[in-house]
Amino acid sequence: MDWQQKGYFNFGGQGPLSQETLNTIIEGYQKVQQLGPFSQRVNAWLDEETAKTRRAIASEVGATPETITLTENVTVGCNIALWGLDWQEGEHILLTDCEHPGVIASIKEICDRFGVSSSICPIMETLNEGDPVAVIESYLQANTRLVVLSHLLWNTGQVLPLKEITYACHQQGVQVLVDAAQSVGSLPLNLPETKVDFYAFTGHKWLCGPAGVGGLYVSPQSFPTLRPTFIGWRGLNLDSHGKPMSYKQGGEKFEVATSAYPQYMGLESAIAQHNQWGTPQQRYEKICELSKILWERLCSIEGVHCLRTSPPEAGLVSFQLENKPHKQFVTELEKAGFLLRTLADPDCIRACVHYFTTLEEIEELVKTIETLK
Amino acid sequence: MDWQQKGYFNFGGQGPLSQETLNTIIEGYQKVQQLGPFSQRVNAWLDEETAKTRRAIASEVGATPETITLTENVTVGCNIALWGLDWQEGEHILLTDCEHPGVIASIKEICDRFGVSSSICPIMETLNEGDPVAVIESYLQANTRLVVLSHLLWNTGQVLPLKEITYACHQQGVQVLVDAAQSVGSLPLNLPETKVDFYAFTGHKWLCGPAGVGGLYVSPQSFPTLRPTFIGWRGLNLDSHGKPMSYKQGGEKFEVATSAYPQYMGLESAIAQHNQWGTPQQRYEKICELSKILWERLCSIEGVHCLRTSPPEAGLVSFQLENKPHKQFVTELEKAGFLLRTLADPDCIRACVHYFTTLEEIEELVKTIETLK
Repeated sequence: MDWQQKGYFNFGGQGPLSQETLNTIIEGYQKVQQLGPFSQRVNAWLDEETAKTRRAIASEVGATPETITLTENVTVGCNIALWGLDWQEGEHILLTDCEHPGVIASIKEICDRFGVSSSICPIMETLNEGDPVAVIESYLQANTRLVVLSHLLWNTGQVLPLKEITYACHQQGVQVLVDAAQSVGSLPLNLPETKVDFYAFTGHKWLCGPAGVGGLYVSPQSFPTLRPTFIGWRGLNLDSHGKPMSYKQGGEKFEVATSAYPQYMGLESAIAQHNQWGTPQQRYEKICELSKILWERLCSIEGVHCLRTSPPEAGLVSFQLENKPHKQFVTELEKAGFLLRTLADPDCIRACVHYFTTLEEIEELVKTIETLK
Repeated sequence: MDWQQKGYFNFGGQGPLSQETLNTIIEGYQKVQQLGPFSQRVNAWLDEETAKTRRAIASEVGATPETITLTENVTVGCNIALWGLDWQEGEHILLTDCEHPGVIASIKEICDRFGVSSSICPIMETLNEGDPVAVIESYLQANTRLVVLSHLLWNTGQVLPLKEITYACHQQGVQVLVDAAQSVGSLPLNLPETKVDFYAFTGHKWLCGPAGVGGLYVSPQSFPTLRPTFIGWRGLNLDSHGKPMSYKQGGEKFEVATSAYPQYMGLESAIAQHNQWGTPQQRYEKICELSKILWERLCSIEGVHCLRTSPPEAGLVSFQLENKPHKQFVTELEKAGFLLRTLADPDCIRACVHYFTTLEEIEELVKTIETLK
């Protein structure tokens, strides 16, 4: 390569694969070839590996394996929940103004097809003051069936109080679907405690697994309310003639068909490596320690404005420049070896730090921003 | 490994990866890490690679790239078509008695949710005599909206006359969805000529790509009749605020979000290798030459009965044993180094030959069947 990275700050886009994770994936491919690729032995082994991945993910979010569906990405997980409710004409979906375009578009399509309405509540403005629980509560309608929000907002880095929001929604008989793209692998999680209904995430961002594997948590209470939409052999019990007899009773119910199984092994390996470093709580504290340093340093640069007026609650540090278009600046940073990204709403640049980000990387980034701004 | 393959006959389950294909996948992973993993450069490069994979697949089925949606597997492709039609209460779906359980279960769920009915037409019995077009025609109802069938039946190996079936269905205003799990990579295909509406396939069987990548062809005529169901950023045009503005106008419309992109590169490489060997027509002729030899040899063994009374029309050779349970026999074959599989309906064993299967492998398999039967 003619180009060398000096600092990686895009964990919210995609986490890097460690060499160990990549080796695990490659060994997975090789073993599939040696035992098959399609044989009784390979199929039995893939079943075991899939169960191990499900257990590793479940443990990471404080849940039992039965509550976890393996998906291709976070958006598929959101779609499984959105399309699995038996929408009735006249029902209402409430979402926040910080949601990802894929989720917004799915909700629009559901509204069009089923005669459901949706509205947006202003959460972005509660970043530095205000109460997101009160905002959401005030936007609930008598016909609201579902609230859709992100746990850790991908644009501003705000962490929403999930337990309190879920409590407020459940009080009114409203279910909660969370886009957890940024929270899994960065926040310490105990999903059963939050009482959240549906929590969709990916393994390729903060967990540093391969792109193409994610998951969906469905609470035991909400499992019976969710029907499978895209359906395939992985979610089915077959009779002796190979015909579908019933749906499986765990998270497999919502899985479809053949996936890239070596990637499951890669994600499992990545999770194991994180746990060698420390518990989710320890990793989260280190992330906050480092993001606070980056935030403080950025706040001290003239012409740079952090969106937050207090230290970040997780690894996302979003900021704006006074004197240069953000897209151009990110391109210049990338040429200088620092990977960050822009966001469109609010128009800003996002730097992500992980627990393994070094102080040197942060110092070098800050210096480069000072020079190029 | 303590175990060596002597003959691989499960191409209909999964095709083997060549070392070249596996190397391409590994290099893909490495390059993503070197350029990113998330950066402007890597994203631009992945866009190019995705476009190349789409072109390679399109070329293999005789279609233009705009008609191809990249999916995780064949079942997801079937689901995109099944859930994308705006079902009206009282409509009817006709499927054959040789369909895969995943597709059967999806249709049942659609019937339950939308007040649609379904029925099954007897195609299995037309394997050696009878006219599948006439059977399908005779089962169409005034309210039939969609016919669902496999092009190359996964159990008996029969090739259905797709062009004629589609013509008969279109005459009555009925659309056709094909489960093409076995046909892509084994039959020479020109999908626009068949006028088929929806054709769902996978890259990991006869095309010998990695598990986890497939595709869906949607004819230009039927494109406007299909809505996206599971929706994400890959299918969307965004406005300057990053909000969804409209759906993309090609097959991307039905794609969702982040996938295992190195696998796309693997499939593209596998397709290129096939084309170095010969055209789809040449590969198909070689498959038929070899499957005829296997079929003749199996027919000559006492106690072994091939389902077909004439040579196979493709690479699938299904047979039954008089004196041993099929599951037990396949286990014994696997221990002896030969990989085959059972099917439940009809109860049989399936051997698949590809164009690169050797005469020696066939001879060794036949000898082993003679010994173990």
